[in-house]
Amino acid sequence: MGRILGVDIGGTNTKIGIVKGSGEIELDDQIPTRAAEGPEALGTRIREWVDEHSKDYPGIDSAGFGCAGLLDGASGYLYVSPNLPGWRDLALAGLFERALSLPVVIENDVNCHAYGEYRMGAGRGTQNFICIALGTGVGGGIIINGELYRGSSGVAGEVGHTVVKAGGPPCSCGGNGCLEALIGAAAIVDRAVIALARNGDSILSGIDTLTAKDISHAAARGDAVALEVLAETGRFLGIEFSNLVHIFDPEMIAVAGGVAGAGEFIMGPAREAFKEHATHPVQERVRIVVAELGNKASFIGAALLAMERHAL
Amino acid sequence: MGRILGVDIGGTNTKIGIVKGSGEIELDDQIPTRAAEGPEALGTRIREWVDEHSKDYPGIDSAGFGCAGLLDGASGYLYVSPNLPGWRDLALAGLFERALSLPVVIENDVNCHAYGEYRMGAGRGTQNFICIALGTGVGGGIIINGELYRGSSGVAGEVGHTVVKAGGPPCSCGGNGCLEALIGAAAIVDRAVIALARNGDSILSGIDTLTAKDISHAAARGDAVALEVLAETGRFLGIEFSNLVHIFDPEMIAVAGGVAGAGEFIMGPAREAFKEHATHPVQERVRIVVAELGNKASFIGAALLAMERHAL
Repeated sequence: MGRILGVDIGGTNTKIGIVKGSGEIELDDQIPTRAAEGPEALGTRIREWVDEHSKDYPGIDSAGFGCAGLLDGASGYLYVSPNLPGWRDLALAGLFERALSLPVVIENDVNCHAYGEYRMGAGRGTQNFICIALGTGVGGGIIINGELYRGSSGVAGEVGHTVVKAGGPPCSCGGNGCLEALIGAAAIVDRAVIALARNGDSILSGIDTLTAKDISHAAARGDAVALEVLAETGRFLGIEFSNLVHIFDPEMIAVAGGVAGAGEFIMGPAREAFKEHATHPVQERVRIVVAELGNKASFIGAALLAMERHAL
Repeated sequence: MGRILGVDIGGTNTKIGIVKGSGEIELDDQIPTRAAEGPEALGTRIREWVDEHSKDYPGIDSAGFGCAGLLDGASGYLYVSPNLPGWRDLALAGLFERALSLPVVIENDVNCHAYGEYRMGAGRGTQNFICIALGTGVGGGIIINGELYRGSSGVAGEVGHTVVKAGGPPCSCGGNGCLEALIGAAAIVDRAVIALARNGDSILSGIDTLTAKDISHAAARGDAVALEVLAETGRFLGIEFSNLVHIFDPEMIAVAGGVAGAGEFIMGPAREAFKEHATHPVQERVRIVVAELGNKASFIGAALLAMERHAL
């Protein structure tokens, strides 16, 4: 087993790592994405990064890329990305293959995250595993019978745009009541703004431009408004746990991403809401945990997916 | 390939068929279930049925059973059934094996239905296929990569108890806003009762104890209240299509069951609501159809699942 390049293209920064076939990280770095310069320019800068490290880490034989957006991992085709303006309808895998002179696998970043957690993190040893990533966006990755489930067009796992509250708040996707519109970072801030209008007795009322992080910090200091905002968020997350358990009956659901940093302030109420919605005790066997690998999960997962594809 | 016995245990009647390994039906019959007499008594009566037909149809070498309820197909264990009072926590496969002296596979009836449609009906030729059964209850069966997906405890596919409208109407499961509470037969009747209180100018206002069938018939005669009731039902079904497409990205969703008899009065609005909620044109590639095999799908699917298990 050689070395694999693992890349996680984010809206601002691109994480790059060198990963062994065992999944162990040898090197872990990041470079600016500069999405506006286009994918060719990013490919060139990744090539330069690889060249710079090739003496110390020779023998990289393939590369795995994680990228936010609707994309088909089988063909490496990106339909559209919310975080990378102008990147749409692109044969992205081929483009990076030319830049790097390496075989490339490209996959939705949350799918990579889920696969990384499945292989090296919280999901080790499971067969049916779901990872939900909470942040500005809300996404999911699904492992079924030990393999990443991609669906028939490669775009499975978009749990953020499943409707949990029909007629609920508007979502960035144009719909209403989607999970993302209920538990994404913007929804948490909106909920706090409404709560503060009712009850200004909060650390948060002094803050000009509120963020989800402010709300987590206030909750950690015992702020009642922040705690209730996160608890309400958690209750919707718990309903989603119940939905996923009713559909998939998985062994484990792991929650990853920035909002997961609010930890038990969200996860506690989420677990309670899940139990209220579970129809039968057998469904409560599912383990619901916080993911383990942080923001390294995606590039590890991408690298391991690339290794497996090219080992065939 | 020999003959397989296919059985679909319903709350009132049990359908029995003799199926060839090719999936073709050779004989198709039904007997009363009499659930209150218990599963041993039903097993004895099925044994009598088999004995009666053994001269004309010799060589039955296994049996597949579909049964409503939470059950684990791998072990043949029934946790609980909504339609069969008193049937709970039973090693049902072993019980029927003793009654019939045949190897038995038992599986949730909607899983059997989905598998029958996948192999012999609407889903032929697909790899990722979902079948939703609408009736008093609402259930689902999921085919992934050409195989029935059962989940880690065997209870996957319970789409009827996924929450689509948090805080919505109460459900038989104890939750609120589940799909079943929005589009099950009782929900359709409740919706009509509310609509009639607002607008009595309808064929339906003369009917004492309204049923979902009455509403379908009135819609077929152009009754505006009935049409709107079914359209609203369809819009929730369309939201569920969107949820399942966002999660699974399947090639096809088929809708089966009694309520599907309302046909385009429900399916038309459902398809429109689905398109409104699909985030990207690639998701609209999914084919959304009415199932083809009617109430024969479950015993065919059960028989084919039994054949495959015992051919291994």
